[in-house]
Amino acid sequence: MQVGVVRWQDGVRQPREEQLTVEEPFEIRIGEQSLAVIMRTPGNDRELALGFLFSEGLIQSAEDVLRIEDALDADGLPLPNVLKVILRNQQQQQALQTHQATFERHFAVSASCGLCGKNSIADLLYTTPALEPDTFRVREAVFYDLAAQLRARQTVFSHTGGLHAAGIFTQIGELQLLREDVGRHNAVDKLVGHALLHGLYPYRERILMVSGRTSFEIIQKALLARIPCIVAISAPSSLAVELAEKSGITLIGFLRDRSMNVYTHPERIVP
Amino acid sequence: MQVGVVRWQDGVRQPREEQLTVEEPFEIRIGEQSLAVIMRTPGNDRELALGFLFSEGLIQSAEDVLRIEDALDADGLPLPNVLKVILRNQQQQQALQTHQATFERHFAVSASCGLCGKNSIADLLYTTPALEPDTFRVREAVFYDLAAQLRARQTVFSHTGGLHAAGIFTQIGELQLLREDVGRHNAVDKLVGHALLHGLYPYRERILMVSGRTSFEIIQKALLARIPCIVAISAPSSLAVELAEKSGITLIGFLRDRSMNVYTHPERIVP
Repeated sequence: MQVGVVRWQDGVRQPREEQLTVEEPFEIRIGEQSLAVIMRTPGNDRELALGFLFSEGLIQSAEDVLRIEDALDADGLPLPNVLKVILRNQQQQQALQTHQATFERHFAVSASCGLCGKNSIADLLYTTPALEPDTFRVREAVFYDLAAQLRARQTVFSHTGGLHAAGIFTQIGELQLLREDVGRHNAVDKLVGHALLHGLYPYRERILMVSGRTSFEIIQKALLARIPCIVAISAPSSLAVELAEKSGITLIGFLRDRSMNVYTHPERIVP
Repeated sequence: MQVGVVRWQDGVRQPREEQLTVEEPFEIRIGEQSLAVIMRTPGNDRELALGFLFSEGLIQSAEDVLRIEDALDADGLPLPNVLKVILRNQQQQQALQTHQATFERHFAVSASCGLCGKNSIADLLYTTPALEPDTFRVREAVFYDLAAQLRARQTVFSHTGGLHAAGIFTQIGELQLLREDVGRHNAVDKLVGHALLHGLYPYRERILMVSGRTSFEIIQKALLARIPCIVAISAPSSLAVELAEKSGITLIGFLRDRSMNVYTHPERIVP
């Protein structure tokens, strides 16, 4: 989206046109009932809806969804920025519609004995088991190429303008899928939704790369999608490292030029 | 938090100690009822609780809160990472506890006729009026100093490690308050909560500076706190610009060295 902006520089003013990252609300409905409104960059909305429902634990597989369709207004015309999800299981649909099933966006798991990162991780791993040890191995040199690839596929605008990017790479470092969004979580949800929509779930022998930092939630989404390896340009949080360690995920940060920090499970990296 | 990490560089491996940004869950209760669990960097939790309730529209002023206290376990010992808010109005407290009053974190306002940014802005301005035109003016040169000040007050770790920072500055560019968090929204909520706790609300003649980008939600929080001027190091989203324009807020982005982009309401800047 183009806007007029004035660049001020030490007393001098220059009007110019500038491209802005688009942010728009997006509503996900279960049947006729609004479930969530999230701010996102338009595009790949079906992926986002599906990835969101999956990340939030409201569906366990693509088969739980009968169909995703445009919501319609009173005249039968499609409503912009609204998608309607019809679940296969009518009971589940009913429960969500009448708020009998609770839905808590951005709420971590609750703990009866106070709250700390260790509880959150334990509770998560109770419902979503850690990855089994696997034979997935990646050559060190492959990682050093990922950042450049991600950047090359983003438009110049999107990395200067600050869109978050998330990509899925193969074992030898081929970029399979790139998604961008104002929200980092949305970009990852779109990748996961894509896998569910196209029969690519789980992402077992894949590398997830994110443009920014890694938090608990990013690792949680990767674990749900069974991704064994996560690479980020910037730093992980303390809880991201703890969760990656416990859930068997290789976590890499500060990937710059030909160096990187390896936080957990280095056994998957072949020097 | 210190962790051991291995730096890989072109086949060479170097173990080293690294400082990580702390991320821990935090639970806000209304009475005995859990309202929300959010991931945050510990510190200034009372501010965060109050700022969160205010930003979410669950309280309208500090007076709505009777007290904030530690939640206790069965033995009467304080639970870590949990705070209990007691509201003055028992009816309101009851409604929130029994989920009669709905609470929707990160859900934008709903719109009956489809959904778009314009609707979201109109709905927000219906409940939270735009700023009145004011006589608050800031000299251009003042802005050019803000980024350096914010960075100087952050520790070296926090800006390399990627903690988000938000600061409140006076008209002549004095930093009054700095808050840092893994979540940008949390950093701003802490600033707002601080104002509520210490009788500093509203932030009428103040400048808000954030370390990263600006989204709809950041502008929304600033509008609720009645902040007339927002400055960011990086880009705003399309909806951030639209909301700032409509709500009478001066929005500046890409503040670097002695230049900046002015998106809305330049009348407050004195060349």
